Amino acid sequence: MTERKEFRDLAPPEEAHEAIAALSLAPPPESVPLDEARGRVLAERVDATIDVPGFDRASMDGYAVRARDTFGADESDPVVLDLVGAVHAGETPDVEVESGACAEISTGAVVPPGADAVVMVERTDDLGGEIEIRKAVAPGDSVMFAGADIAAGSRALGPGTRLTPREIGLLSALGVDEVPVRGSPTVGIVSTGDELVRPGEELDPSRGEIYDVNSQTIAAGVAEAGGDPVLYPHAGDDYEEMERLLKRAADECDLVLSSGSTSASAVDVIYRVIEERGDLLLHGVAVKPGKPMLVGRLDSSGADGTQQSAYVGLPGYPVSALTIFRTFVAPAVRRAAGLPEPRTATITGEFAVRERYSEGRLRLMPVGVLERADADRPLVYPVDKGSGATTSLVEADGVVEVHPDTEYLAAGEAVDVRLFSPDVRVPRLLGVGEDDPLLSRLLDRVDAPRYLPVGSREGLRRLRDGVPDVAVASGPTDRDVDSAELGAWTREWGLVVSGEADDVDGLADLVDGDYRFVNRDRTAGLRATFDAALEELAAEGERSRAELADRIDGYELTVKAHESPARAVLAGKADAGLGLRATAESLGLDFVSLGYERVVLHAAADRVDKPAVSELADALADSTHECEALPGYDVA
Amino acid sequence: MTERKEFRDLAPPEEAHEAIAALSLAPPPESVPLDEARGRVLAERVDATIDVPGFDRASMDGYAVRARDTFGADESDPVVLDLVGAVHAGETPDVEVESGACAEISTGAVVPPGADAVVMVERTDDLGGEIEIRKAVAPGDSVMFAGADIAAGSRALGPGTRLTPREIGLLSALGVDEVPVRGSPTVGIVSTGDELVRPGEELDPSRGEIYDVNSQTIAAGVAEAGGDPVLYPHAGDDYEEMERLLKRAADECDLVLSSGSTSASAVDVIYRVIEERGDLLLHGVAVKPGKPMLVGRLDSSGADGTQQSAYVGLPGYPVSALTIFRTFVAPAVRRAAGLPEPRTATITGEFAVRERYSEGRLRLMPVGVLERADADRPLVYPVDKGSGATTSLVEADGVVEVHPDTEYLAAGEAVDVRLFSPDVRVPRLLGVGEDDPLLSRLLDRVDAPRYLPVGSREGLRRLRDGVPDVAVASGPTDRDVDSAELGAWTREWGLVVSGEADDVDGLADLVDGDYRFVNRDRTAGLRATFDAALEELAAEGERSRAELADRIDGYELTVKAHESPARAVLAGKADAGLGLRATAESLGLDFVSLGYERVVLHAAADRVDKPAVSELADALADSTHECEALPGYDVA
Repeated sequence: MTERKEFRDLAPPEEAHEAIAALSLAPPPESVPLDEARGRVLAERVDATIDVPGFDRASMDGYAVRARDTFGADESDPVVLDLVGAVHAGETPDVEVESGACAEISTGAVVPPGADAVVMVERTDDLGGEIEIRKAVAPGDSVMFAGADIAAGSRALGPGTRLTPREIGLLSALGVDEVPVRGSPTVGIVSTGDELVRPGEELDPSRGEIYDVNSQTIAAGVAEAGGDPVLYPHAGDDYEEMERLLKRAADECDLVLSSGSTSASAVDVIYRVIEERGDLLLHGVAVKPGKPMLVGRLDSSGADGTQQSAYVGLPGYPVSALTIFRTFVAPAVRRAAGLPEPRTATITGEFAVRERYSEGRLRLMPVGVLERADADRPLVYPVDKGSGATTSLVEADGVVEVHPDTEYLAAGEAVDVRLFSPDVRVPRLLGVGEDDPLLSRLLDRVDAPRYLPVGSREGLRRLRDGVPDVAVASGPTDRDVDSAELGAWTREWGLVVSGEADDVDGLADLVDGDYRFVNRDRTAGLRATFDAALEELAAEGERSRAELADRIDGYELTVKAHESPARAVLAGKADAGLGLRATAESLGLDFVSLGYERVVLHAAADRVDKPAVSELADALADSTHECEALPGYDVA
Repeated sequence: MTERKEFRDLAPPEEAHEAIAALSLAPPPESVPLDEARGRVLAERVDATIDVPGFDRASMDGYAVRARDTFGADESDPVVLDLVGAVHAGETPDVEVESGACAEISTGAVVPPGADAVVMVERTDDLGGEIEIRKAVAPGDSVMFAGADIAAGSRALGPGTRLTPREIGLLSALGVDEVPVRGSPTVGIVSTGDELVRPGEELDPSRGEIYDVNSQTIAAGVAEAGGDPVLYPHAGDDYEEMERLLKRAADECDLVLSSGSTSASAVDVIYRVIEERGDLLLHGVAVKPGKPMLVGRLDSSGADGTQQSAYVGLPGYPVSALTIFRTFVAPAVRRAAGLPEPRTATITGEFAVRERYSEGRLRLMPVGVLERADADRPLVYPVDKGSGATTSLVEADGVVEVHPDTEYLAAGEAVDVRLFSPDVRVPRLLGVGEDDPLLSRLLDRVDAPRYLPVGSREGLRRLRDGVPDVAVASGPTDRDVDSAELGAWTREWGLVVSGEADDVDGLADLVDGDYRFVNRDRTAGLRATFDAALEELAAEGERSRAELADRIDGYELTVKAHESPARAVLAGKADAGLGLRATAESLGLDFVSLGYERVVLHAAADRVDKPAVSELADALADSTHECEALPGYDVA
């Protein structure tokens, strides 16, 4: 086993920020066509080079006149002028307005020579060849003089201006079609790990292959921060290959990120490449997660042969990688692109529980956020699934920084949440409990829900502790929760069986036969229902439940989700699994019914009227369509 | 003159919202590659089709063991197991762990058959062929079982979810590389008006040509709202051409917007096309600006031959067009794309002044916003330049809705500002007053400034009225303002002259000679300085200033900006212009010095310590570099 790098002298997080800030990521300014300029940042001041408008422009439909000719005119005493011609927008005037004359003029047209004002058409009458003017105008009335909007030579937009539609409009007015903007930093992403496979490609789990999560996640984060991501092929932990890849990325990019592998040997290889082919500025940061973060520079073959590219090594676990990217790297990418931190990137919420802390280093605690109906600030609760879980990516919304000297976060304390993305939408509903296919369909009809399938017992426990809005529970539960029952349904449950078990007719056959079984885990309400049925069968035969359980091969082999036992049967790994008729039919498997269980939608007593809770209750009350698609289902 | 459409029966704004909401803009869902999915919205629920991980996965570097073999082991009483092999990430295990044995394992590797736990390497010692285990582990320790992160068949992401980096990450984990997303509505933009020229093309102002502002502005707005903009060629007011263009746009787009022309005849043509080739749902809305808004449908040659495309006609003036787009159309485009209204699209501020109102229809009042150092809420002030001014686009930040029955907005009142874009950055500094090239360079060094070149007197008046942070004034001013002088500079002024006036040596020659002169407008401090010099000359000769002014051909011909007289000279429109030495030299013109004038940077007395004010004062105090680039400048 290779010697492993130790992370003994961890740098304080501030030092990591400083080290990254000291890297030079900003590419030179570039020029982009106006229609690609939205969202970019002006690299230099833009002064007007032309007058806008470029001529004296009529701002009304009407008649161009010499103002002096109209003096004294009013409704009761109009003046009459000779109509000598007409000027329309986009035409060079072919008339001159002399004293006593006027010319028809359209909005936007050039005020003809001689004229110095426009009388709006509503205050005139066409007498045929002559025009009656019923209003006196002053010189300049209804005329925008050349340069009156923007004068040539004047300051139009300053450097650093973000180009939104209105700035695009001003640049259009000035005739600018190529815009000098800050360059977007090119960010190379090198994923390490022999086990990684790109999404869309074939996966061989028997070889321990997994899909590469970090590359696309970080690439999306780079794009969001104003950078241009470039994905490189996966690198294993071969030194030469890694060196070649990192060198290529350094040549082509302003910043190189490595990420993906959690294996110490791959990290070691990167470490050695940076040390030998660049400068390692920082190795290990006193932050959780993200301790093994690297910051440095990589030699690159720039134009002058001496350039270096910036380098940051991210942790391997997806949530850790995104957290460290978001906290340390994204701000640097944005600075290089000239973009401000989005205003929506941080929100303030109220911490839901008391959370002790004694880590001795900065903790970037993943948290979920929940919109509340009766309070301005959303609820914030810790999400602790272990940083290896991909699902933490979507079960948490961002991170709260907990400083090393913090002893605990108090319930009710105001906390700032740095969202994983400025576009993260705070969930309107938090549900917990049993997983169920009808429920999944009902959730589709709620705007911005989050549901954590923690099982019935755990769901009710969490509802009692006050964070979620609703809990869904099935089976015998002993929890006593102060909740309102918003509705319920029944589902037919039993054994999902393969051909190997086609002579199974009931629970007794499973106990007595020689079948490979897959059970649900103890969190599932369905498991509790199964155990109760087993208890009943045991009582009938004056045996103990444990005795029967012992006789089921695979009783202790538990899996997490409602379809998992059935899928094990489908894959030939088992002959029978605990599951639902709906699942059996959707997967084309046989089913042995053992009964119906009731699934109840509980709401926290004080949140029955929360709009998103009502939406879910309404969806359930009106779920005939969804039920029909699920054999064995009935809304109670 | 064609008969003009009257807008007599204006629809209430709610009716316009409803009419637009009733149009069908949403294209069918589409499938996009994962790396283009960021920012898009899921069209349907995504359930996991695979287990993540797809195998029992080691979550630590260490040794795969049978947990039972380690029972009882601790630091003082380790157990020793035979090392039978190694499994690395990305490899199919080629060992089986039997009782008494162990296998080296890397994080992420497949737990080999027989093993049910991993002991982390830190709690082991390699004795060479044998491994000393110093810790007891339970089954499942440091192992993530197949499907424990995400189980096949479970709900991963719901429909309507906006795809941010973390969702991209979850989809990656599931191996999804094509994502079903809501379609982006295609929005065609037809600009009308014979006088419009695309940015980048040659402009002929003598024909009354102007650059097309609305097309690019609205296209950027469409893209920002999640639509795909398509620009069509400009249409004049020819019926056949307009009909052909609108039909083509309707065939190709979900929504067609027309915009650009303010001329009644072009609007009439569109009106007729919609009436004859579609349905006009709504004609004229009781809102200012935007009265002449049209809402309807256009027949299009859809697949079934009967489809219609949605149509909205926007007003012609840029600020009006953007305001109406932002208020009525952008929300519909977002809805069609499945995107929520951005959280940053509306901010609350404090109205700075008392503003009377009595329009009888909904007013979308353009306002500027100013960040304050000593208050949470920004200051909001009305911007009233007339909707024809393109500069209003960048001098206003958004609009405040003022309802028809509002009598006035009070100073200090809280108002909601709908920003022109969620990316609009609220200015940190508001300056007003004299326009000056040194000042323009200093502003480049301040983050997010806004400067309105309203002239010295008007600048000081506005400073006294309490909205701006700073005012810049030159020349003799009679305003008495409670302000702090933060710094000053001098600039050399005089006559910018062409070869025609090369014998002009001083002001007396201008008065006595026969030259075409261009003056600055009365708002300029420089003009006041010029008039004072003229007064002095008049006194010397015992004449009146008016007498001298009368003798200057063009004394009353005034232009707006500091370079404008010089540019008139450069264009051969005048022989001499009032201006600065710096301008003359930068444009390559001759210069007759008439003196130096002092330009003073005033700050509102209570905002001297505002950070952005300090930034400007610091820039001035350290402006040697900028001064050197400007002949005739000196920092006092």
